[in-house]
Amino acid sequence: MDRLAMVAFGGNALLRAGEKGTFEEQLRNVEATCAQLVHLLRRGYGLVIAHGNGPQVGNGLLRQEAGKQVYGLEAMPMDFCGAETQGSIAYLIETALERVLRREGIDRPVVSLVTRVEVSPDDPGFTNPTKPVGPYYPSNPGVCIGGENFTTHAQFTGENVTGWQKNDHLSTPEAGGAVYKEDPAGRGWRKVVASPVPVRIENIDLVERLAREGYIVITAGGGGIPVVREGDGCRGVEAVIDKDLASALAATSMKADEFYILTDVPKVYINFRKPGEKALDSISVEEARRYLAEGQFAEGSMAPKVRAGIRFVETCGGECVITEAGQLGNPSCGTRILP
Amino acid sequence: MDRLAMVAFGGNALLRAGEKGTFEEQLRNVEATCAQLVHLLRRGYGLVIAHGNGPQVGNGLLRQEAGKQVYGLEAMPMDFCGAETQGSIAYLIETALERVLRREGIDRPVVSLVTRVEVSPDDPGFTNPTKPVGPYYPSNPGVCIGGENFTTHAQFTGENVTGWQKNDHLSTPEAGGAVYKEDPAGRGWRKVVASPVPVRIENIDLVERLAREGYIVITAGGGGIPVVREGDGCRGVEAVIDKDLASALAATSMKADEFYILTDVPKVYINFRKPGEKALDSISVEEARRYLAEGQFAEGSMAPKVRAGIRFVETCGGECVITEAGQLGNPSCGTRILP
Repeated sequence: MDRLAMVAFGGNALLRAGEKGTFEEQLRNVEATCAQLVHLLRRGYGLVIAHGNGPQVGNGLLRQEAGKQVYGLEAMPMDFCGAETQGSIAYLIETALERVLRREGIDRPVVSLVTRVEVSPDDPGFTNPTKPVGPYYPSNPGVCIGGENFTTHAQFTGENVTGWQKNDHLSTPEAGGAVYKEDPAGRGWRKVVASPVPVRIENIDLVERLAREGYIVITAGGGGIPVVREGDGCRGVEAVIDKDLASALAATSMKADEFYILTDVPKVYINFRKPGEKALDSISVEEARRYLAEGQFAEGSMAPKVRAGIRFVETCGGECVITEAGQLGNPSCGTRILP
Repeated sequence: MDRLAMVAFGGNALLRAGEKGTFEEQLRNVEATCAQLVHLLRRGYGLVIAHGNGPQVGNGLLRQEAGKQVYGLEAMPMDFCGAETQGSIAYLIETALERVLRREGIDRPVVSLVTRVEVSPDDPGFTNPTKPVGPYYPSNPGVCIGGENFTTHAQFTGENVTGWQKNDHLSTPEAGGAVYKEDPAGRGWRKVVASPVPVRIENIDLVERLAREGYIVITAGGGGIPVVREGDGCRGVEAVIDKDLASALAATSMKADEFYILTDVPKVYINFRKPGEKALDSISVEEARRYLAEGQFAEGSMAPKVRAGIRFVETCGGECVITEAGQLGNPSCGTRILP
């Protein structure tokens, strides 16, 4: 395969609004997304797929908590839960993709790798965790400490911690070293974890080689299992790596020609849902940066996708396309970020 | 790598008696097992690792049940839970193995594949499920039907189903198509699933190639995610594939030179814990068959290992070694099954 495409599946590739998230629903959804990849395969692309895992790892964390309550099981940490979702979601994608390939008479093997992704222990995210994960608690399960002689028990007073401006508050080891934040909507307290920048994708050289041979490779699920280098090897950390950033790093490392970020809208908009709303066909890295600076793209939604696109295009010189799966049949689909 | 070894990790590679099964305990245990693999690596072997997942998938099923009770989450099926354990256990093994390799100055990459394993829909196991999995229920959660006009609700009467001789009792779709069996020790009712024979390991050609290149490959975790061919592709089934049989099939498919089945005893015994107890150094396939027929090896313990060994040696002509990890430093360790 001369040309390589990296495709990042968005959340709606697996779970759609109003669904319960049964196995059958997720399999059906992912099959619909995979059916659109045929357009890329027919154009002769080598293909690497990454996917998100937000709702799945969220449910995994809830099940850990529930298993502790109901059966007294040990709760496993978030990196372990993330690894679980790599196995289960890869299984869903493989199964769905294989059905599509057979139906279309396309003879391409599929392989899924469990993927650790290295992050820096000095990533600022670790001193300022922002990503809420897991169950809501009625009070703060962490015993807050911070600064000198600061020993307020937040679960008793709730003071000093509202809004978590004080991000130097680290909970005690008894609380699992975790930091909790009160939900602004009043639903309770949730653990917050870092969202560090990915710096190295395990086995990405092998992924590239297999994809260029014709394998469709599934890797870096959920942004990868986050690990930091330490001593003889590495250790897992409780964190969430943005899957679009991890996919951008994978695409860059492989010198992919195109990087598709699949989402639930056909194009990127400026003035989204406001007067002067405009769908973008193609933008330069410079324009993308300007729109980002203007706050045109929502954080936690389109902004990280545009940032991931910029990172890929700038480093690699390829094209990034942000679109919905249903548009892949149209060679000029979506919003293109160009050098 | 001219010579290839397949190693099947036993349950105690991850979990040991008296432990709670925390992440740290499992990581420490698997690191101790991985440290012993160095002996094989120093002898220049290509290496493929498979592992069990009994306690892990068991806990996964309990967490599915607990998540439904506590948070109203959809319970995912067993094949999905098995896929989860492939991700999480591979992550543990990779992390532990990498520490060992770095410490020993061995430069070998590690890669883990999510692996579906095909079984036959006609496998007799599906009409006679025997493997108990998941939580104990105080009464039979399945509504039993079987034969003509047989509509006894087992959860009300408990009759007709004790001991589950009547394996034509299939529960209604409302009960998830599951079959339940009463625990002989009176702890309640548990779902029983098939333990079908593996017939094809996904991507085993790739596994062999990578292992011969020098990659240490982790595959077929928990015996593989069981699937049956159907229409355009395959569908998952709720079943448990014996991990030693799956490993034997992997070893055979790759024409491995040696197949190590790691367990918690140094050798296989005849008259185990009885007068005339004797550790076996090496036995022929014929002797192994005779001892099996005599009932020398316990079902659910040594018997399936010996059967897996026979299958490999007979088909492939290589050597099967059944031993504990700590013995791998001794080139004449364990019990060898020879052609």
